[in-house]
Amino acid sequence: MAIVEEFPERLRRRFRVRNPLLVNLLSEFFATTLLLCAGTGIVLQHVLSEGKLNTWTHVHLGWGFLVALCVYGTFKTSGGHMNPAVSLAMCTLGKLSLVHFFYYSIVQTIAAFLGSGLTYWAYADQIQNFTGGIRTITGNKATAGLFCSFPKEHISHSSAFLDQVIGTALLCLFIAAIIDKRNKIPTGLQPLFFGLGLFVVGSSYGMMLGNPINPARDFGPRLFAFVFGGYGWEVFSYHNYYFWIPIVAPLFGGPLGVWLYQLFVGIHIPDDTPSNLGLMDLPTLEVNGIKSSCSELEPLSENGA
Amino acid sequence: MAIVEEFPERLRRRFRVRNPLLVNLLSEFFATTLLLCAGTGIVLQHVLSEGKLNTWTHVHLGWGFLVALCVYGTFKTSGGHMNPAVSLAMCTLGKLSLVHFFYYSIVQTIAAFLGSGLTYWAYADQIQNFTGGIRTITGNKATAGLFCSFPKEHISHSSAFLDQVIGTALLCLFIAAIIDKRNKIPTGLQPLFFGLGLFVVGSSYGMMLGNPINPARDFGPRLFAFVFGGYGWEVFSYHNYYFWIPIVAPLFGGPLGVWLYQLFVGIHIPDDTPSNLGLMDLPTLEVNGIKSSCSELEPLSENGA
Amino acid sequence: MAIVEEFPERLRRRFRVRNPLLVNLLSEFFATTLLLCAGTGIVLQHVLSEGKLNTWTHVHLGWGFLVALCVYGTFKTSGGHMNPAVSLAMCTLGKLSLVHFFYYSIVQTIAAFLGSGLTYWAYADQIQNFTGGIRTITGNKATAGLFCSFPKEHISHSSAFLDQVIGTALLCLFIAAIIDKRNKIPTGLQPLFFGLGLFVVGSSYGMMLGNPINPARDFGPRLFAFVFGGYGWEVFSYHNYYFWIPIVAPLFGGPLGVWLYQLFVGIHIPDDTPSNLGLMDLPTLEVNGIKSSCSELEPLSENGA
Amino acid sequence: MAIVEEFPERLRRRFRVRNPLLVNLLSEFFATTLLLCAGTGIVLQHVLSEGKLNTWTHVHLGWGFLVALCVYGTFKTSGGHMNPAVSLAMCTLGKLSLVHFFYYSIVQTIAAFLGSGLTYWAYADQIQNFTGGIRTITGNKATAGLFCSFPKEHISHSSAFLDQVIGTALLCLFIAAIIDKRNKIPTGLQPLFFGLGLFVVGSSYGMMLGNPINPARDFGPRLFAFVFGGYGWEVFSYHNYYFWIPIVAPLFGGPLGVWLYQLFVGIHIPDDTPSNLGLMDLPTLEVNGIKSSCSELEPLSENGA
Repeated sequence: MAIVEEFPERLRRRFRVRNPLLVNLLSEFFATTLLLCAGTGIVLQHVLSEGKLNTWTHVHLGWGFLVALCVYGTFKTSGGHMNPAVSLAMCTLGKLSLVHFFYYSIVQTIAAFLGSGLTYWAYADQIQNFTGGIRTITGNKATAGLFCSFPKEHISHSSAFLDQVIGTALLCLFIAAIIDKRNKIPTGLQPLFFGLGLFVVGSSYGMMLGNPINPARDFGPRLFAFVFGGYGWEVFSYHNYYFWIPIVAPLFGGPLGVWLYQLFVGIHIPDDTPSNLGLMDLPTLEVNGIKSSCSELEPLSENGA
Repeated sequence: MAIVEEFPERLRRRFRVRNPLLVNLLSEFFATTLLLCAGTGIVLQHVLSEGKLNTWTHVHLGWGFLVALCVYGTFKTSGGHMNPAVSLAMCTLGKLSLVHFFYYSIVQTIAAFLGSGLTYWAYADQIQNFTGGIRTITGNKATAGLFCSFPKEHISHSSAFLDQVIGTALLCLFIAAIIDKRNKIPTGLQPLFFGLGLFVVGSSYGMMLGNPINPARDFGPRLFAFVFGGYGWEVFSYHNYYFWIPIVAPLFGGPLGVWLYQLFVGIHIPDDTPSNLGLMDLPTLEVNGIKSSCSELEPLSENGA
Repeated sequence: MAIVEEFPERLRRRFRVRNPLLVNLLSEFFATTLLLCAGTGIVLQHVLSEGKLNTWTHVHLGWGFLVALCVYGTFKTSGGHMNPAVSLAMCTLGKLSLVHFFYYSIVQTIAAFLGSGLTYWAYADQIQNFTGGIRTITGNKATAGLFCSFPKEHISHSSAFLDQVIGTALLCLFIAAIIDKRNKIPTGLQPLFFGLGLFVVGSSYGMMLGNPINPARDFGPRLFAFVFGGYGWEVFSYHNYYFWIPIVAPLFGGPLGVWLYQLFVGIHIPDDTPSNLGLMDLPTLEVNGIKSSCSELEPLSENGA
Repeated sequence: MAIVEEFPERLRRRFRVRNPLLVNLLSEFFATTLLLCAGTGIVLQHVLSEGKLNTWTHVHLGWGFLVALCVYGTFKTSGGHMNPAVSLAMCTLGKLSLVHFFYYSIVQTIAAFLGSGLTYWAYADQIQNFTGGIRTITGNKATAGLFCSFPKEHISHSSAFLDQVIGTALLCLFIAAIIDKRNKIPTGLQPLFFGLGLFVVGSSYGMMLGNPINPARDFGPRLFAFVFGGYGWEVFSYHNYYFWIPIVAPLFGGPLGVWLYQLFVGIHIPDDTPSNLGLMDLPTLEVNGIKSSCSELEPLSENGA
């Protein structure tokens, strides 16, 4: 059944992009489009069914697994940030240059625009049927919420800003802990845990604004709603020009979360002492008379698992 | 407690089928029958309890885990496609010949027919009790939906077709990313992630048609509903002969998804550079004076984990 | 922080039971008590809150994770069957002698009796408060269902029997696939997948009887309800002496499931050919001039992962 | 894209704390603050939405994943107890000295105080909007429950005490089984299973009191509710000074659970016999003419996976 040469390998030899930045930008573009295409669909099924099909719990579980899958798909290229706040946090860890952060952000925002547009197009009939043709941000038949966040009127800008800082800090703090090489979390599980992290953040700081915590995810679809959605300028002017908060606040929250983790835990982790909880004594592995302690060998299986 | 020789090993020596195609077809038959037997049960508990026991979320979670388990059972033989759209996508990757694709599709459809029939038979009393003996496709006591998809009347054929293309593309795109050997996702986790992928697709593109995205899964049970279910010719003629859409559209969506992934990410993944996110520096492992870089060794633990 | 010698190791040297059968029976006793103690609690929170706290979905998710955890705790001793139907299925695979199956079954039933009793005792006040002191099997304030299964009156004995055969067959079929060494599913994940299997069975064949599929789990608590629960002889006589069905039917279903898997898939799995889906080419690992193919080495990391 | 030296490594060289106790206390402080900050948020979304957004199931799933993530972040330092009952249980296993247990407990309680306070501050507007400014423990608009447990009046102190003993025993019993090195559960999965364990406990023994099973988690926020929350002395005097029960009872339950596991299973696990269920025969691995049984090598991949 084995084919002499698989088709992707042939294409790879001819069309493979070798510039690492370009490869990463392609991946960010792909992952963020995917995230918003399916993610907008998840919210849409919540909105159009008035919470009967996709419940609030379902929405957050769906987004969690979706983020995990998008990261799995791009884990060996850009890492699947899909979020300028995450990219900026990676900058402050020295894993990304500031110039690349700007490129990433722009590509992520364009991809979010397109991804949400794709779902809007696919569901055009259903949205028409639900709203009777009138696009509104508030009210019984409001549908703008399937693109981006529109908080209730009683939520002050300062509450919203704080909410976004804490939410993004929590997410990036979880990410920082998960990717810390000294924590030795199997790389094959890390994307899944990012997704669980997003689920937890949405479950604890998602009520006020619906958990955007991502400038590209909020602004890109908002732009689409303005340009093609038929919701008009109100998508920006709503609630005293609230729209800038989920763009700016996460950029503070991301780095904050990463560094809280580093200062309290990360930089103090012993180099190779097993924890008190659950780690077995490391035996030594003797091969051919040369004793090598297992802690030296660990990264091998770590990496592979 | 150890037995000298386990019974399955004895049978294996005597009855083992050695023709790989036949082994794979047996596996596809088994997995697809299982998928439809349990899967129809999941939908049935939703329908007969009018959404009270198995909620919409429960149905999608159940199908996700079910797919994962069916794939685990056949992962070392056919791979557990259970879906002609997935098989066709594998064809375009060069992992399956076109002739085998046809064999797979036929076996999958027969198995879907039988699997849904098994559950129909087991639940005959309950269905009778629920419907009062009248089999209908629409209305309060409609039960045809436990076999296959019957969209609402306001959903146009073009919307339905697009929905099925996108849904199947999403699923196969996730599959392509998960099985890409350069992504180094542990094989022991891959079937679970296929299941989460299905959950995400149903959560974002499941509202219109109920997420068939599988020609065998939709047509096989539809045939059963026609032949033995007592729903009559209407299972085909319903909604202006809608039935062909979940057969044809997924066959476009599957390859589309796989190749979108390959063109944007897959063929550009560097051969052994760790990603920016989360991978530790690979140490070298010295055994007996011969240095071998860990990246050479990786597949060993990869494969095992 | 390391202690010279951990306390359990000291006890181990003095009190360790070395008879394997006794060790296994202790484990089965422990795991089944635990399963019924927590499991009855899960059902109880469903019953006493009238489905508001623990929904139907929650009950099945809770049981799934509970089974997984009970198996993790006894995975290296008896394997955590907690179910005579599973033990009998293991018999037919040659992993357990028929005599031991009888010992296992008796211990499992006693443990189920005690486990459900423990929760009944802990929740005595709440049950009293809910029922106003009257213990009934049917009606608005029925509580017997928290011990064991009591099907609706319109479910015939033959439907119930078939339901239990299929349900147990599905469960044991999943177990057989998961533990098949040729499927190379990491042992560290197997108990989790047993739990997901139970979730799927309850989601597809749980509506009629509530998914007992376990003679000990149904009969032990039923006995407790008779002796100490105050429900009287009706726990046996209910619905024309239905009580024997979830005892006998699973003993047919368990072996059936295991052997369906073996005959369709298990005995035909090639010895070391990678599947079509997702397995990378196995590289050879050269150590000190001796080439050893990875497939020889696989079980090492397999086992560990 | 690789940076010559990552920023955290520079800080590490300059500010790394090398006293293991201090490192552990920093980690406990960090993890417990995080747990209560997000955990209070999860409960708060349940309370303020009157169960519509975060359902009961969602609350327990969210706490389960949250605990898992907090432990992942501190797994290689203190182990992420976040709970004096767990720390005491570790004492009785000889993994922690009694003096350190006291330090841990104090830090955990302070962190719980601060963590819940952070969320109270962030959600101040919303709480004000929900309650209309009146802070109450009971009634329609009661909000004290988002800090700590306040049982219904009909629950006697003895029922509450028993509930907390059993709940904590179950949790610590699961933990003891998961971390038992002889069970060989991959360390990279252990924190996830702690989280599933918490989910199961809340699903079976969470109805009466809401599943505190943690002295720090209950008392710290209670103190905050008294000092800054505006609920007055009633947070202590409520229900005949119930507040001491979730402080004292878990300290009995934790060690009880750990030792029940050890006496029934842990100390009897054979040293290297594979279980009856699912383990393959261990092959020997020959390298350079020296045969080393795989059981010797196991911990390597075990540890890494």
